[in-house]
Amino acid sequence: MKKQKILTGDRATGKLHLGHLAGSLSQRVELQYKHNQTILIADMQGLTDNGHNPEKVASNIINVIADYICAGINPELTIICLQSALPALAELTMFYSNLVSVSRLERNPTVRHEIKTKGFKDSIPAGFLTYPVSQAADITAFSATLIPVGEDQLPMIEQTNEIVRKINFITKKEILKECKALIGNVGRLPSLDGKSKMSKSSGFVINFDSSDNDIKKAVNSMFTDPNHTSVDKPGKIEGNVVFSYLEAFYKDGNHLEELKLNYQKGGLGDGTTKKILTECLIELIKPMREKREYLMNDKAELINMLKKGTEKSREITDKKCKEVKDNFGILLF
Amino acid sequence: MKKQKILTGDRATGKLHLGHLAGSLSQRVELQYKHNQTILIADMQGLTDNGHNPEKVASNIINVIADYICAGINPELTIICLQSALPALAELTMFYSNLVSVSRLERNPTVRHEIKTKGFKDSIPAGFLTYPVSQAADITAFSATLIPVGEDQLPMIEQTNEIVRKINFITKKEILKECKALIGNVGRLPSLDGKSKMSKSSGFVINFDSSDNDIKKAVNSMFTDPNHTSVDKPGKIEGNVVFSYLEAFYKDGNHLEELKLNYQKGGLGDGTTKKILTECLIELIKPMREKREYLMNDKAELINMLKKGTEKSREITDKKCKEVKDNFGILLF
Repeated sequence: MKKQKILTGDRATGKLHLGHLAGSLSQRVELQYKHNQTILIADMQGLTDNGHNPEKVASNIINVIADYICAGINPELTIICLQSALPALAELTMFYSNLVSVSRLERNPTVRHEIKTKGFKDSIPAGFLTYPVSQAADITAFSATLIPVGEDQLPMIEQTNEIVRKINFITKKEILKECKALIGNVGRLPSLDGKSKMSKSSGFVINFDSSDNDIKKAVNSMFTDPNHTSVDKPGKIEGNVVFSYLEAFYKDGNHLEELKLNYQKGGLGDGTTKKILTECLIELIKPMREKREYLMNDKAELINMLKKGTEKSREITDKKCKEVKDNFGILLF
Repeated sequence: MKKQKILTGDRATGKLHLGHLAGSLSQRVELQYKHNQTILIADMQGLTDNGHNPEKVASNIINVIADYICAGINPELTIICLQSALPALAELTMFYSNLVSVSRLERNPTVRHEIKTKGFKDSIPAGFLTYPVSQAADITAFSATLIPVGEDQLPMIEQTNEIVRKINFITKKEILKECKALIGNVGRLPSLDGKSKMSKSSGFVINFDSSDNDIKKAVNSMFTDPNHTSVDKPGKIEGNVVFSYLEAFYKDGNHLEELKLNYQKGGLGDGTTKKILTECLIELIKPMREKREYLMNDKAELINMLKKGTEKSREITDKKCKEVKDNFGILLF
């Protein structure tokens, strides 16, 4: 694949966790060697459903930067920038929102689903309904062509490309680039109870600064196989959260296959599998936690790194916004 | 009244006309001596229902500046600035739109009425639905406290003040100022056929560069009293477009009262009243047309004037946007 411009990011609404590591973060660590990658700390998007609580978003910006670095994102390879410090994104959002109808947004399956799960009822914030337009602004401002997303986010890519085609039609030029989704091949980690994916809203999560004890408690609370009532009985792997996490993080693949066989055959207890997972996760998290602590001792350095990335990004996004305005015929001051 | 900060403006979707002169423009010419007045050329708002035709908005920016100067707006007294060149307005719009629900916007009477008259049907641009939020951004970014509006725009002022109170509640500070409407005492000029107010959409209008012949034709086409079938018969003043225009622009009030009495009594023909109005309007427009031609010969000077006003305004609006962000706790780069 030719070197692509990748845009990805996270809403700054909390610390990142193992769910991110297994999914988007490990993918990004690989992508940064092959492509031009930019990561947007999406504080503006975080505010779309936290408008009355900006403190929640503001205070998590530093957490998200620290988590990125711990997880192996290298700011020499990946540009990390702050959405709210790029006014061109807001400007482009306004231009694009004149080209997208309210009913088109209401029909967007991702938005529909999220409105339902967030329980807004009759009080959907206007900024939330229009956030696909804002995402289109983000993607196009960076001329990103490859967007790592989950399958549930595909309608967002389609919405973006609709806007791209409209702007190019209006300006009679290929000012904006269409983008493609890059669907990750890493499955999503389940929540500890196995009922949903691991997310802040699903309850307890393992963060990159979780203590050994927290990890132990988390693993101990994991859903396994309720019918696996004694060690010698056969147990089920499917839906067994412990094995899902081992799949994602246990490095010795051969040993894992052996464990699975023994578990299914009977003779391997949940106490043992949980002990193995606990040790595996402690080994994974401990250096991340230590690195995170070290980084958080010098927040100014983290902020400075974000500032540098944001300044580079501001040049890129301002230029694109000016290009759109110029092709609209609008005076540029 | 204490000196206030006034914000007013026009969508850059066409040349201004006698309707503007009788209404908002003459009021602004007076206000600029008493208050701190800023006029926003609202190209972003013009795009909310012209998203597919930005050329229409872009090409009219220069017309609107020229029209302001012709009408007596003095750039030494009034700051004139361009909305699209003030990114803080787009940024604040995004922050505020998280605090306003879609249903609240759909209930806004001004928006409801305009959606109906513009015939969007099922295809209301998202940017159009949310334009009251953008107006709130404009008003608060300038800390404007007095907003000259027609009565039909009062819901916009209320929507703005709702947002002001929310932001002040969230930040626990009086960051934003509430504003008051200033309802103009000048009635709205009717369209030539008397069926609606004078506006671009009502058909032919008299602009500040209309030729003597255009003025003559316009006046001749004006609706008078259909029952006034001969000179000697009594005629009606109410609904008589010629008299509405004389009321607005004829300088000799005593003579106008005399004309009215004679018309109502019988003995004054429409030919005569139209001749008087034609002469009156030619006398009004001629110097404006000449000034406009002179101004349009040096567009660079007009643009430079707008640039100066925009730069001053950018300082003011950037500062306010930073203040909001800072009080949200968001990093400022």
